[in-house]
Amino acid sequence: MSASDTPLLPMNYCSDCGQPVSLVIPPDDNRLRHVCGHCGTIHYQNPKMVVGSIPFWEEGDRVLLCRRAIAPRHGYWTLPAGFMENNETTEEAAARETLEEAGARIQLQGLFSLLNVPHVHQVHLFYRAQLLDLNYVAGTESLEVQLFREAEIPWDEIAFPTVSQTLRLFFDDLKAHREGCPFGVHALDVRKRIQQ
Amino acid sequence: MSASDTPLLPMNYCSDCGQPVSLVIPPDDNRLRHVCGHCGTIHYQNPKMVVGSIPFWEEGDRVLLCRRAIAPRHGYWTLPAGFMENNETTEEAAARETLEEAGARIQLQGLFSLLNVPHVHQVHLFYRAQLLDLNYVAGTESLEVQLFREAEIPWDEIAFPTVSQTLRLFFDDLKAHREGCPFGVHALDVRKRIQQ
Repeated sequence: MSASDTPLLPMNYCSDCGQPVSLVIPPDDNRLRHVCGHCGTIHYQNPKMVVGSIPFWEEGDRVLLCRRAIAPRHGYWTLPAGFMENNETTEEAAARETLEEAGARIQLQGLFSLLNVPHVHQVHLFYRAQLLDLNYVAGTESLEVQLFREAEIPWDEIAFPTVSQTLRLFFDDLKAHREGCPFGVHALDVRKRIQQ
Repeated sequence: MSASDTPLLPMNYCSDCGQPVSLVIPPDDNRLRHVCGHCGTIHYQNPKMVVGSIPFWEEGDRVLLCRRAIAPRHGYWTLPAGFMENNETTEEAAARETLEEAGARIQLQGLFSLLNVPHVHQVHLFYRAQLLDLNYVAGTESLEVQLFREAEIPWDEIAFPTVSQTLRLFFDDLKAHREGCPFGVHALDVRKRIQQ
């Protein structure tokens, strides 16, 4: 069996003892795992969470986007978001990423979207958020940050399908909210591959 | 710096090249990571998702619980749930775990709870679900599976705080639902440590 038969990222050596690993199905399991032939450690791989916010500024119904200064999708626009770290909550991750990428302070207002991206082993979460001031500034991973009304959003230059889906759902819910409907919590799967 | 100063699990060797790793803060980063001194690979660690269901049987307003046959919390009761795998969605993970642990077929009905457990680097998700039949059977990780009315739930023998919180919220919402309120999506943080 080879790693190309599995959804696992390549692994050559045991991170515990440094000896080679093999792909085998452990006893009482039904999936291939990297298992150390020396110390027996089973190295599980699991999806990662990407967490971000939808920083909203009431005046003009505008949302803050960041233009990416890093790969993948350098130069494309995104909501502030990134990999959740150990020892933090999803809300802490959303606020941290918004501060790091957009230099922006927010008040979180609730989970808005959960998007599965199974082919890259990721789950993306976005929180609604109120921008607390206009003193935002591009972080090291952003080329620029800018507020956009719905009609101004560069839809063809959005970095990831999870971001464009979240933005479309957000502006739809915003209109419904003005007519008295509460914001929803949206769950969907994104299986579309992007050009790197 | 040692691993005890960080929220990282121990790592000794590079899984790419087998040489020793060190704990350093990489350039353009602000956290300690395990970095290979030989090939330079940065080994990130991120939280894992535990996904499960609340399998509901309308007659008698009963929920299906599993008594754990494995550590941690052997012998305690839980909702069917487990680590999400690569290449699947959260809904697929919830249905798979319910089939594996409780031998139960379900119709998923929407995300119900998201619980951060930051001290163990986990996020737990539970989906509402309709049990499709009563042909459930204990899987290899369960000692037994059983339907419980709210008043019958062994609250002192529930395996994890995220499960007891989810069950309490579910039965509260069930009563409100009977009076016309929609089920909520509940987000909370659980920082309580359990006895292993």
